[in-house]
Amino acid sequence: MKLNIALLAGDGIGPEVINQAVKVVDAIAVKYNHEINWTSAPTGACAIDECGEPYPDSTHEVCLAADAVLFGAIGHPKYDNDPSAPVRPEQGLLKMRQKLGLFANVRPTFTFPSLIDNSPLKRERIEGTDLVILRELTGGIYFGERGRKDNGNTAFDTCTYTREEIQRLAKMGFELAMTRSKKLCCVDKANVLESSRLWRETVQAMEKDYPEVSVSYEFVDAVAMRLVQWPNSYDVLITENLFGDILTDEASVISGSMGLMPSASKGLHTSLYEPIHGSYPQAAGKDIANPLATVLSAAMMFEDAFGLQAEADAIRAVVNKSLAEGIVTEDLAGKNKAYKTSEVGDWLAKNV
Amino acid sequence: MKLNIALLAGDGIGPEVINQAVKVVDAIAVKYNHEINWTSAPTGACAIDECGEPYPDSTHEVCLAADAVLFGAIGHPKYDNDPSAPVRPEQGLLKMRQKLGLFANVRPTFTFPSLIDNSPLKRERIEGTDLVILRELTGGIYFGERGRKDNGNTAFDTCTYTREEIQRLAKMGFELAMTRSKKLCCVDKANVLESSRLWRETVQAMEKDYPEVSVSYEFVDAVAMRLVQWPNSYDVLITENLFGDILTDEASVISGSMGLMPSASKGLHTSLYEPIHGSYPQAAGKDIANPLATVLSAAMMFEDAFGLQAEADAIRAVVNKSLAEGIVTEDLAGKNKAYKTSEVGDWLAKNV
Ligand SMILES: CC(C)[C@H](C(=O)O)[C@@H](O)C(=O)O
Ligand SMILES: CC(C)[C@H](C(=O)O)[C@@H](O)C(=O)O
Repeated sequence: MKLNIALLAGDGIGPEVINQAVKVVDAIAVKYNHEINWTSAPTGACAIDECGEPYPDSTHEVCLAADAVLFGAIGHPKYDNDPSAPVRPEQGLLKMRQKLGLFANVRPTFTFPSLIDNSPLKRERIEGTDLVILRELTGGIYFGERGRKDNGNTAFDTCTYTREEIQRLAKMGFELAMTRSKKLCCVDKANVLESSRLWRETVQAMEKDYPEVSVSYEFVDAVAMRLVQWPNSYDVLITENLFGDILTDEASVISGSMGLMPSASKGLHTSLYEPIHGSYPQAAGKDIANPLATVLSAAMMFEDAFGLQAEADAIRAVVNKSLAEGIVTEDLAGKNKAYKTSEVGDWLAKNV
Repeated sequence: MKLNIALLAGDGIGPEVINQAVKVVDAIAVKYNHEINWTSAPTGACAIDECGEPYPDSTHEVCLAADAVLFGAIGHPKYDNDPSAPVRPEQGLLKMRQKLGLFANVRPTFTFPSLIDNSPLKRERIEGTDLVILRELTGGIYFGERGRKDNGNTAFDTCTYTREEIQRLAKMGFELAMTRSKKLCCVDKANVLESSRLWRETVQAMEKDYPEVSVSYEFVDAVAMRLVQWPNSYDVLITENLFGDILTDEASVISGSMGLMPSASKGLHTSLYEPIHGSYPQAAGKDIANPLATVLSAAMMFEDAFGLQAEADAIRAVVNKSLAEGIVTEDLAGKNKAYKTSEVGDWLAKNV
């Protein structure tokens, strides 16, 4: 196959981890006889430096033209303590999500048996955890009207959802549940919020179309608790944008494998694959960052965007092999030898 | 002293746990020569049954007239799967908070050395945790304008904050930090929300009045992670209503002592003390619920509302003694004998 991939490396460790994924994907292409056409484009703080815009139109064109987008990370410390700066890297992220129509963020949390003891949770709490949170990504309070009144002394944000926005996300949730254990949890705050009541009634009305899926409805505060207590009691969860932001991050640390968790954002115009970790500026340029989450994001891309299952499986297999043989970066090395980011990438590419 | 206490037992296990706190408080009153005047009033599902209103005006009058309110729990399963029922117990809770002006919910999370192994977290992660979350309780998206448009197909909720609302909560946070380790964390989502930017700029402007307090600003998603990873890195946290709802619940399960965590809600007209656990309907009437969180809430009441430190310390001491001697309910008994709720209350009252 001929595959066009947009490459958005971004800031911090983004370029380093992306480079390793490129090596692995190129090796897969040789093995399975694909032709990869990579197109790089700037985004994030580095795009602001280059052209004053965290998600330039030219980058958007590259994404639209591609079959899928592989994304590193964005964010730079110089913007961290100034959330009201006129242009910030995160704005690029939000603009990208909206313009590409990436309405569903798919965030799996699973465990690697060899890494389970890295979890802050006790082994018996986390063992067997394998859940997916579907976070709505282009609606809610992230994109509602906001502003100031009373000479700047009152601030407001609006959370708005339409039935269609909920339906398309929920449909993805039901369909995903059908391929897994047929358990779906709708997370909301329907005891307080009108938008949550619309979520709940919309999902309830869809239940009849998926008679095999058993659906539960839980309040976001209760889910924040149970994710720590019994994460393995969950399977597929669907939720709105802000709750999803909090819960996916909470879920990401419980597995002990934060540096390995991939994600996908799917939508109307294309789909985007990225590691869930951030731009980790302290490690930038040091060739020490763990590239596995980005490599596993590329596996998700083969599976979801290109429908190429064997290629996805091959990437996952070589990642498991690197873990088993200890070809890992310092975050996972423990007392053993730590490999460089680039060494891990080279090893993976050679062993696919 | 003459102390007028409003007693809102509520639903489920509320009445049972409240009864034990009453026994302990009465014993303290004898020992320290106070006169307690208890006035009971209905609230929650039982108030709906009695008078069609989860927080009747008559109950409000009782609260206003009292020096403090001791509260059990509200909520009943018959309302659980119907968040759009016209009258629900939670509405009583929200009305009570608003009418009593309870703008600050104070939720400590600390560990009991003897219970640390109940935590889902590993011992080394949770040991030494002693933090307090101050949650704003009468503003934000809980009390903003909400509704439907487009024939019910669009729903919206509004989050609004004024500078004054933020200042009074933050002031409490700074003052609390001064009595502890002088570390304050302001939790927001200032990279997205305008209301969060107002939070951040308001707290930043107050820093100069508390030069000894070192203030950090963190995004809610990052805090949801770090609470699981390194809870003992936090001390005092301040946050808005919805973030506080999620984070206080998350924090409550990490200590392993959920059944022991008290809370206070402070405000304009009175202050209210309650266990953080819910109405636990499955256990109602069985005399098995753990009363210690309610008893410790009474200790907070003596300290905060009445300024009676010795009495508060005496309650905490007898609770520690009951834990040390294993006079505990089934949730804490492990393989040892489990005492009934009422037996624990009797023992505490006898041993203060
Ligand atoms: C950077 C920020 C705007 C973003 C979000 O809140 O969506 C991030 O936290 C994420 O989850 O991707
Ligand atoms: C019952 C509900 C309305 C309430 C809230 O969200 O405030 C509860 O979760 C709490 O934290 O006291």
